[in-house]
Amino acid sequence: MDIIGHYINGQISTEAERTQAVFNPSTGEKSKEVAIASKATVEEAIAAAEAAFPAWRDTPPIKRARVMFKFKELLEQNAEKICALIGAEHGKIVHDAAGELQRGIENVEYACGAPEFLKGEFSKNVGPNIDSWSEMQPLGVVAGITPFNFPVMVPLWMFPMAIVCGNCFVLKPSEKDPSSTLFIVQLLKEAGLPDGVINLVNGDKEAVDTLLHDKRIQAVSFVGSTPIAEYIYQTATSTGKRCQALGGAKNHAIIMPDADVDNVVNSLLGAAFGSSGERCMALSVAVAVGDEIADVVIEKLKAEIAHLKFGVYSDKSNDFGPVITAEHKAKVVGYIDSAEKQGAKIVVDGRQAQPEGYENGFFVGPTLIDQVTPDMVSYQQEIFGPVLQILRVNTMQEAMDLIDNHEYGNGTCIYTRDGEAARYFSDHIKVGMVGINIPLPVPVAYHSFGGWKRSLFGDLYAYGPDGARFYTRRKTITQRWPSANIREGKQFSMPTLN
Amino acid sequence: MDIIGHYINGQISTEAERTQAVFNPSTGEKSKEVAIASKATVEEAIAAAEAAFPAWRDTPPIKRARVMFKFKELLEQNAEKICALIGAEHGKIVHDAAGELQRGIENVEYACGAPEFLKGEFSKNVGPNIDSWSEMQPLGVVAGITPFNFPVMVPLWMFPMAIVCGNCFVLKPSEKDPSSTLFIVQLLKEAGLPDGVINLVNGDKEAVDTLLHDKRIQAVSFVGSTPIAEYIYQTATSTGKRCQALGGAKNHAIIMPDADVDNVVNSLLGAAFGSSGERCMALSVAVAVGDEIADVVIEKLKAEIAHLKFGVYSDKSNDFGPVITAEHKAKVVGYIDSAEKQGAKIVVDGRQAQPEGYENGFFVGPTLIDQVTPDMVSYQQEIFGPVLQILRVNTMQEAMDLIDNHEYGNGTCIYTRDGEAARYFSDHIKVGMVGINIPLPVPVAYHSFGGWKRSLFGDLYAYGPDGARFYTRRKTITQRWPSANIREGKQFSMPTLN
Amino acid sequence: MDIIGHYINGQISTEAERTQAVFNPSTGEKSKEVAIASKATVEEAIAAAEAAFPAWRDTPPIKRARVMFKFKELLEQNAEKICALIGAEHGKIVHDAAGELQRGIENVEYACGAPEFLKGEFSKNVGPNIDSWSEMQPLGVVAGITPFNFPVMVPLWMFPMAIVCGNCFVLKPSEKDPSSTLFIVQLLKEAGLPDGVINLVNGDKEAVDTLLHDKRIQAVSFVGSTPIAEYIYQTATSTGKRCQALGGAKNHAIIMPDADVDNVVNSLLGAAFGSSGERCMALSVAVAVGDEIADVVIEKLKAEIAHLKFGVYSDKSNDFGPVITAEHKAKVVGYIDSAEKQGAKIVVDGRQAQPEGYENGFFVGPTLIDQVTPDMVSYQQEIFGPVLQILRVNTMQEAMDLIDNHEYGNGTCIYTRDGEAARYFSDHIKVGMVGINIPLPVPVAYHSFGGWKRSLFGDLYAYGPDGARFYTRRKTITQRWPSANIREGKQFSMPTLN
Amino acid sequence: MDIIGHYINGQISTEAERTQAVFNPSTGEKSKEVAIASKATVEEAIAAAEAAFPAWRDTPPIKRARVMFKFKELLEQNAEKICALIGAEHGKIVHDAAGELQRGIENVEYACGAPEFLKGEFSKNVGPNIDSWSEMQPLGVVAGITPFNFPVMVPLWMFPMAIVCGNCFVLKPSEKDPSSTLFIVQLLKEAGLPDGVINLVNGDKEAVDTLLHDKRIQAVSFVGSTPIAEYIYQTATSTGKRCQALGGAKNHAIIMPDADVDNVVNSLLGAAFGSSGERCMALSVAVAVGDEIADVVIEKLKAEIAHLKFGVYSDKSNDFGPVITAEHKAKVVGYIDSAEKQGAKIVVDGRQAQPEGYENGFFVGPTLIDQVTPDMVSYQQEIFGPVLQILRVNTMQEAMDLIDNHEYGNGTCIYTRDGEAARYFSDHIKVGMVGINIPLPVPVAYHSFGGWKRSLFGDLYAYGPDGARFYTRRKTITQRWPSANIREGKQFSMPTLN
Repeated sequence: MDIIGHYINGQISTEAERTQAVFNPSTGEKSKEVAIASKATVEEAIAAAEAAFPAWRDTPPIKRARVMFKFKELLEQNAEKICALIGAEHGKIVHDAAGELQRGIENVEYACGAPEFLKGEFSKNVGPNIDSWSEMQPLGVVAGITPFNFPVMVPLWMFPMAIVCGNCFVLKPSEKDPSSTLFIVQLLKEAGLPDGVINLVNGDKEAVDTLLHDKRIQAVSFVGSTPIAEYIYQTATSTGKRCQALGGAKNHAIIMPDADVDNVVNSLLGAAFGSSGERCMALSVAVAVGDEIADVVIEKLKAEIAHLKFGVYSDKSNDFGPVITAEHKAKVVGYIDSAEKQGAKIVVDGRQAQPEGYENGFFVGPTLIDQVTPDMVSYQQEIFGPVLQILRVNTMQEAMDLIDNHEYGNGTCIYTRDGEAARYFSDHIKVGMVGINIPLPVPVAYHSFGGWKRSLFGDLYAYGPDGARFYTRRKTITQRWPSANIREGKQFSMPTLN
Repeated sequence: MDIIGHYINGQISTEAERTQAVFNPSTGEKSKEVAIASKATVEEAIAAAEAAFPAWRDTPPIKRARVMFKFKELLEQNAEKICALIGAEHGKIVHDAAGELQRGIENVEYACGAPEFLKGEFSKNVGPNIDSWSEMQPLGVVAGITPFNFPVMVPLWMFPMAIVCGNCFVLKPSEKDPSSTLFIVQLLKEAGLPDGVINLVNGDKEAVDTLLHDKRIQAVSFVGSTPIAEYIYQTATSTGKRCQALGGAKNHAIIMPDADVDNVVNSLLGAAFGSSGERCMALSVAVAVGDEIADVVIEKLKAEIAHLKFGVYSDKSNDFGPVITAEHKAKVVGYIDSAEKQGAKIVVDGRQAQPEGYENGFFVGPTLIDQVTPDMVSYQQEIFGPVLQILRVNTMQEAMDLIDNHEYGNGTCIYTRDGEAARYFSDHIKVGMVGINIPLPVPVAYHSFGGWKRSLFGDLYAYGPDGARFYTRRKTITQRWPSANIREGKQFSMPTLN
Repeated sequence: MDIIGHYINGQISTEAERTQAVFNPSTGEKSKEVAIASKATVEEAIAAAEAAFPAWRDTPPIKRARVMFKFKELLEQNAEKICALIGAEHGKIVHDAAGELQRGIENVEYACGAPEFLKGEFSKNVGPNIDSWSEMQPLGVVAGITPFNFPVMVPLWMFPMAIVCGNCFVLKPSEKDPSSTLFIVQLLKEAGLPDGVINLVNGDKEAVDTLLHDKRIQAVSFVGSTPIAEYIYQTATSTGKRCQALGGAKNHAIIMPDADVDNVVNSLLGAAFGSSGERCMALSVAVAVGDEIADVVIEKLKAEIAHLKFGVYSDKSNDFGPVITAEHKAKVVGYIDSAEKQGAKIVVDGRQAQPEGYENGFFVGPTLIDQVTPDMVSYQQEIFGPVLQILRVNTMQEAMDLIDNHEYGNGTCIYTRDGEAARYFSDHIKVGMVGINIPLPVPVAYHSFGGWKRSLFGDLYAYGPDGARFYTRRKTITQRWPSANIREGKQFSMPTLN
Repeated sequence: MDIIGHYINGQISTEAERTQAVFNPSTGEKSKEVAIASKATVEEAIAAAEAAFPAWRDTPPIKRARVMFKFKELLEQNAEKICALIGAEHGKIVHDAAGELQRGIENVEYACGAPEFLKGEFSKNVGPNIDSWSEMQPLGVVAGITPFNFPVMVPLWMFPMAIVCGNCFVLKPSEKDPSSTLFIVQLLKEAGLPDGVINLVNGDKEAVDTLLHDKRIQAVSFVGSTPIAEYIYQTATSTGKRCQALGGAKNHAIIMPDADVDNVVNSLLGAAFGSSGERCMALSVAVAVGDEIADVVIEKLKAEIAHLKFGVYSDKSNDFGPVITAEHKAKVVGYIDSAEKQGAKIVVDGRQAQPEGYENGFFVGPTLIDQVTPDMVSYQQEIFGPVLQILRVNTMQEAMDLIDNHEYGNGTCIYTRDGEAARYFSDHIKVGMVGINIPLPVPVAYHSFGGWKRSLFGDLYAYGPDGARFYTRRKTITQRWPSANIREGKQFSMPTLN
């Protein structure tokens, strides 16, 4: 059975004392083994990165950017293969994987603009004949730790920006679906990246802790659950590193009475059930303002859900696939059970779903729950499954209070036609990414991704302008030249006398 | 005896279970008592700030900026009084206090530009008819903890920017010289700031820990010594706050063989002995490249030092004043002793200095030490006194290695006429603020202040553009309007039938 | 009788071969004489500016900005006097003059941020060890030619930005109401501006043409009517100068059927009749989409207009004052006559208006005209009087076509609650300044003012970020230091051998 | 014989009433005919562009940018062919053509960053609940008129930026070497650009005047000689268009006594003789400060020039090729003759140069002239040939005065090791592009290209950030939503009562 290895200093290494199984969640079968890095292996990767740093930092930004231009080409040329690798280990349908890849490529495109976003500020005459300017210098060796749900996109949020800023990188992707990540990282060599600038280690807590405690690592980017994010953030900052740690979410949509109902229904379907709800920006809670709109929307959702198709990743006619593991399936089902027990109404029940021919796959069908209340466990916690819960309130303010009182503050959305309602909502809601009639308001690559409250630990957000700031360190230079020595050049003013 | 109180919700409060003595370091006498805030007092200040926040965040930035315009006027009108307050408790000569105030006012001036630096980025058509933009929203209640050495300037690095960004502020200044800080904070009321937007508590570890652990505090700015900075940073970040914690320094100047010697000598004097060396940007180590330049510079320095005058803060003919406390004087003298014991050569000895009439003041005279080596305690640690140490090396690379191997990375300077040497140095040195023929390369207010290595904990630097980022939280809004309802207006297309 | 003079090199000069009468339009009486500059006088002003330039360009931007900080204080301290001067010669009511002054001061506030907006861009390593950066250098001597309708605000759009960028300035204000302009310019001396940096000449075409043809003038900013703007632009650019020339306007509001009617009526009143409609951003045309909303709005406007009060500038209970001259009054009345003749319906007629006690003042009462059509002269041309014309259309698209087909493209506004309609309108309309439920969408000072089509000639708009670009010239420096001469310093590596 | 045609609406058109010969300057033979567009043909191109505009402006910037990403790939894939086309008609050696292409591709790379540089500025709360933001909208149809000396690079300065900003383009390249230009424009179709967005017409004054007078053309970018640039600028601006017109140059290098002589000599050779000196940034005048350095540099230059090889474009061992036409050769030789007559010393004489086998080619050999003085015609005018002239002065100030007094202000360079001399020079010299030890300080694509004085007419420079400004028009939107209609939604607060 194939061993998925590490990528260190331009070479694949599959030696490992420990390995761990990788599954095909569509079939429920184990498909590969992944090598689990020891402390020594991680340190080898760090050492490779450190060795590559001096030359890479001195490479002009435009040349670093050209590696990204070429990398984009290669990602596009290999799109089909990448999507198949994602699907086979994550389970998302290939068209969804293609969307993931495209959002990832956007970040590579942004990284191509390094000469622009690395510009410093130049001030002439901060004092008489004194100039001052800032340089945004790379940090050195930085690390990324990424989750299973976007094995390609989330790494692409991190390393293209880190690398193009002049850093060297050690990536620890999810051990649940590492093949697509490993594949894209290797493309960088073909794109012209010197060995050692990027390195990938597969692993578990040992690898993570090695990265967190190693003095040579200057910064850590993390995406995952909130408890781990908090641990990563506290550990990394206590060892003097920069850290941005993105955690969980519970994204609410408010449906106002004047909303365009067809737009609500169509866009909620994808936002709630796409990728089986395993997205940190999934829209998992809809708050209807008034029973009237609630009833209409639920009726229409119910009808549309009946047409949703889920199954194996490779069948493009499917709308979504399985969840990542058997354990995760049990957890999702458990949340639905608990909602039912706590009095919610299961409008559409996906607990018994079994696509034909894939009975052992980790599937949960689309689930719609009405009459959800804030005290329910299923409301308070992140489900990360194809489950859409409906709450009903009487006023927009109540809906906003629900959102503001929730632990998470990643994304949110309002459906309305009214300019004032939209503006009030986006101004006051305590959430980092706000959609107006947009259920998945993931910022484009030239803006930055970040939630509020316990959805993000750190000052600077992922990718975009904040990514450039996160991966560089400011240096301010103040300069005066002491005297008009050569310029006044008295010694040269009389040569014709000779 | 006067009790220096707190300033909470627009009112002075002097009630305190505990107080602490404040001294006049020029005479060595106790001059006042300062109230030490209990946990309850600090919480009262936080509550006042929290209550003031909603209205202040909704005040247009230009109106917030106009408070700063007025505050600048008031600081200038009260300059003499402020400088006297600084001198009486800190000991620095009034002309030096005036310089401190001016650098502080610069930050108020920068804060006046809030409408410019609070602009977000607007992207039209991130998708078809979809727009996206960012808003930099205030955090809420934020805190500042500031050191004795710049009782006016360092608070002015923080609260003008924090406030103008829409935050409310709780300031805990140094308990050693709080009067000038309290005075300037009170001027904000006259400048039109609503009560509660700024609050000041005097205190000690109890106050600090209350600020660090209170959930309502969103961010902490700190300037002080490295061990405390590290504690502040780890504690604040572990409780989910933003933090920028600026610590100690050991700023080296490299003197190249082609340096303009007169410029070196003149500028070193102020940079080393100004404010008794109690500046985190003080130039306390000079590294001469080659004995030839070392000998010349030392000879000239010795001659100039003989003309330096130190004494009481109010006598403008003095070059510098006492150090802050008797304990600190002992510590500085101890470092000189240790250097002597470890084999350095005391060229000019300030240990016995006693200005006439101020024999009980906490004075140390200007001290010049040659033949210092990296293994000496006086080299490794921050002295924070009027002591300039000289190291001799053979090459510029040796000088740079010294700097890069030191724990701190705050400021540094090279003296040269050579463009290439200056550029190589500023590019490669691992220090955040670099001077070229500028011994105190403190960035101007429209750049940002921050060291590297253990001189700063955090991602974003103090004041300037980074200050604006530190005191605001990004929100990204993505907007699409669902259908051409009113615009296509079919219901209005028939009036011509009438 | 007082002669209003020139201000050249810090001195008032009233010598003039020619003078011209200045009137009090509220009484219709001549109040002063203004000196009309000869070519020689203008050249004297240019020479003074040119002489002041070298020192001023080398003054650090922060010091130039501090003159603006002080200038703001002085403008505020002298507000009452300035408003009285405006009122006495222009006729606008003092509360309106206060608004004008405030909008002017905003530009001074923005100019205080010069250290920020003068920053260049610094690129490290555009090639190996090659850096490149931009500097925004002042142009030299620049000129401003300003209209009667905002004798304080429009000059303040220009010279604060020009001066703070390091230029020297020659201002030719309107000869109809020059006193307030002259007064504020003189305040700059008290604010610390060196003599010669700003100069003011009163004059007519001779002065204008001298400015346009003098080789020492690097740039011309103009605000006035479109024919003159075009002449200024063509002449200035043909003599190698930069030019921004702002011309006329015909600003339409679209009233959508879903508009908030009370907001429409209240805001239209001020926008149409404020300052007697003598504003280039006056809202002089309202296009109602559907007769239903048209009828409601007209009914309410009629009722409100009945309460409008106009009269002498000094009576704060007045809503607006006279127009600028007897000739202009005749012109405005003529436009109303022509509308009537061409078939429009005069709903409220201001032609016979005569405030008691001010029968000789140049007054036109508020006039509301319905049933206006695009072929009418009163629709095609700028009236610049207190006249609001209503057009009726059936669809929003018809309303937009009207606007897009008009010669001018200065400002426009839509009244609606609908997000989609607002977004479509602001995206597609061919007008430079767009309001959504804002009838006078004058950009704030930290944005830039400029219309489209024949409302502006030039690439860069007035004030704000564009102002900074207009008044500076880009210089790009690319730097490499040739060899590691001093740095490698072999000659200094052996001194320990001695 | 091949007819080089136009490219209109995605189709090649070779119909032409008139044609003109195209030569191979290496052989002196006519190689092709180029169609000369009539007014009607140019209008057809404009009409195609206008028709394509509405859809293209509404295409999201990221999609427009992706055309540029693909265009870059295609330019790289076709590099060899493009360079051969350049060489065959322009004469420059293929390695020089490759350099030209690479500088052109840099601009395509910059254009890929459109989503970043098209961002507007968003201001929250410019007043209570009022927001304001700017959008940089495309102009419509814009034109470019480009010179023979960079048939690929200069067009690439223009149309990628224009197109990616959302404009449609009509390009009129030089009729002397149009094939490479036509070829690259056609690649855009393969890159995914819709037909009509770019169009190319070959032509002469008739085509130019049609472009300048057509009302549909919104902006004109021009690069060529100063008299034509001035004509273009005056005509275009008088018809209400934006215009940037880049003209001639006379770029001086100052050689300071402390310069690194080897660097001077090596870099001067390429800067003076590369591309036969037919570059607007060619370094054609060297001003030596002191005879000592003059003598040394001339001696070394003489020796190096002896090794320079010139000849046919396809032989990579050649350093440079012929000049563009027989007429131009005669003109260059005439300048050398005149210098000789006016008393200069011809150190190396290229007038009789005839590479073997290419005796009929339009060759001028490398020419070095000493003892040049400011009164000589060869000094005052742009030669645009492989001629380096040396002036000798006694002080740096004299050298700077020479430069500042020259008509042109395109580029300049100083050779020195001294920081102060470099800074003084770059600060004060009246030239737009300044090199410090860099003889051809062409700004990289992410800065902007533009000279001062009579080297550029217009406010905004070519490419980079200025290019983005030139090809877009600012629109400022100010928005308030009138009332809390839907949001407060009383009608929905009681539905449970039913």
